[in-house]
Amino acid sequence: MTYCVALRLDRGLIFMSDTRTNAGVDNISKFRKMFTWEKPGERVITVLTAGNLATTQAVVSLLQERLKAPEDRNPSIMAVPTMFQAAKLVGDTLKEVIRTQGQDGPDAESKFGASMIVGGQIKGIEPRLFLVYPEGNFIESSDETPFFQIGETKYGRPILLRAFRPEMTFEEAVKLLYVSFDSTLKANLSVGMPLDMQTVEQDTYKIAESRRVEENDPYFSTISSRWGDALKLAFNSLPDYEF
Amino acid sequence: MTYCVALRLDRGLIFMSDTRTNAGVDNISKFRKMFTWEKPGERVITVLTAGNLATTQAVVSLLQERLKAPEDRNPSIMAVPTMFQAAKLVGDTLKEVIRTQGQDGPDAESKFGASMIVGGQIKGIEPRLFLVYPEGNFIESSDETPFFQIGETKYGRPILLRAFRPEMTFEEAVKLLYVSFDSTLKANLSVGMPLDMQTVEQDTYKIAESRRVEENDPYFSTISSRWGDALKLAFNSLPDYEF
Repeated sequence: MTYCVALRLDRGLIFMSDTRTNAGVDNISKFRKMFTWEKPGERVITVLTAGNLATTQAVVSLLQERLKAPEDRNPSIMAVPTMFQAAKLVGDTLKEVIRTQGQDGPDAESKFGASMIVGGQIKGIEPRLFLVYPEGNFIESSDETPFFQIGETKYGRPILLRAFRPEMTFEEAVKLLYVSFDSTLKANLSVGMPLDMQTVEQDTYKIAESRRVEENDPYFSTISSRWGDALKLAFNSLPDYEF
Repeated sequence: MTYCVALRLDRGLIFMSDTRTNAGVDNISKFRKMFTWEKPGERVITVLTAGNLATTQAVVSLLQERLKAPEDRNPSIMAVPTMFQAAKLVGDTLKEVIRTQGQDGPDAESKFGASMIVGGQIKGIEPRLFLVYPEGNFIESSDETPFFQIGETKYGRPILLRAFRPEMTFEEAVKLLYVSFDSTLKANLSVGMPLDMQTVEQDTYKIAESRRVEENDPYFSTISSRWGDALKLAFNSLPDYEF
């Protein structure tokens, strides 16, 4: 499984993903699920991936044109004129990979499915955020739905629904994502540390912050332990039922 | 979908279930998912059901021996000597119904699956709580896992993991279940009001409280709105991230 979230804030975009992949519970590995194409001052495009690892790796390799010799690589994701076109490119690539992997081979148990979040900003246009389905089509975030999750989305969703505000600072948004990831990590073994985190400030067209959050990260540990206490306090502050 | 929870407290058992059933999102109905067999002073056995409605209704009818004329009904669930035997009876009935419905007919999309929570107390033995699988086998709650959920379990699980204590009062336990249900209702349309709630105090062998919680229930509305505020306060009480 996997857990990835992207929030569209008034100040820009923030992305977070875990790194655990598993084929059964006895075969776990660590893989990056956050990929960025950046030309500072002109464009920054980040893709988060969930689903079949062979599929998502193939899609990312195709987007990076790794099938070409290094000197010939000129990925078209660096040339698309809009974020809509970037989402379409990711969707078409994803659909093609799933179709190719599914044909002519022995029947697999799974469908090689995957879904992706595509977000970023290209000069002259606002930041945009898309959710791309395995079928290759996609939806865009809106004021009503200003964030997307993929993978194991349920445990971490209630706090996003309750505490997200588009006007929040990046500092508050990191806290929100840590709480959402903490609830998920506590409940599902197939979502695991370390986490990758990245922010993009509006109209800068580059990564503002990018870091890997390790298991022993002091701020994450603080949030994890203090959130438990804060939840209990919040719970105790409500009036008890009366029979 | 469905959401049902049963908690094993030091003081006894508490059960809660929703009432929404759906075949697609355009065909929703209201059905009770909580069933009790009681002989006050001697035994009280409650079953919560999730899954295919035809399956769960057939199981409950068989347990109530509704295939017999009213005067001949003497359900064996009222005669089993232990809660273990009650769970086994429910499991065997469930397995048999699924097996029968699955054979000789046209292939259905679903497997007619269902799972159930069985809890209660029979005189002379402690209260016990079981989770029964569609295969007919079952597991029992323990000090490490003192509650069971069936149906749409994920949204409401984090607060149970954080705030449940076996020594809590029934008044606190109702509050905990309301919070857990509120998070689930907010996130999944296929879980819906009204809710059924029931408590069994240890060594009384009867239902202590049983009520239906309607949409406009004042205490539920209070918990729902104040929990949102309390969560935001709890969230704001944590230190922000520093870049």
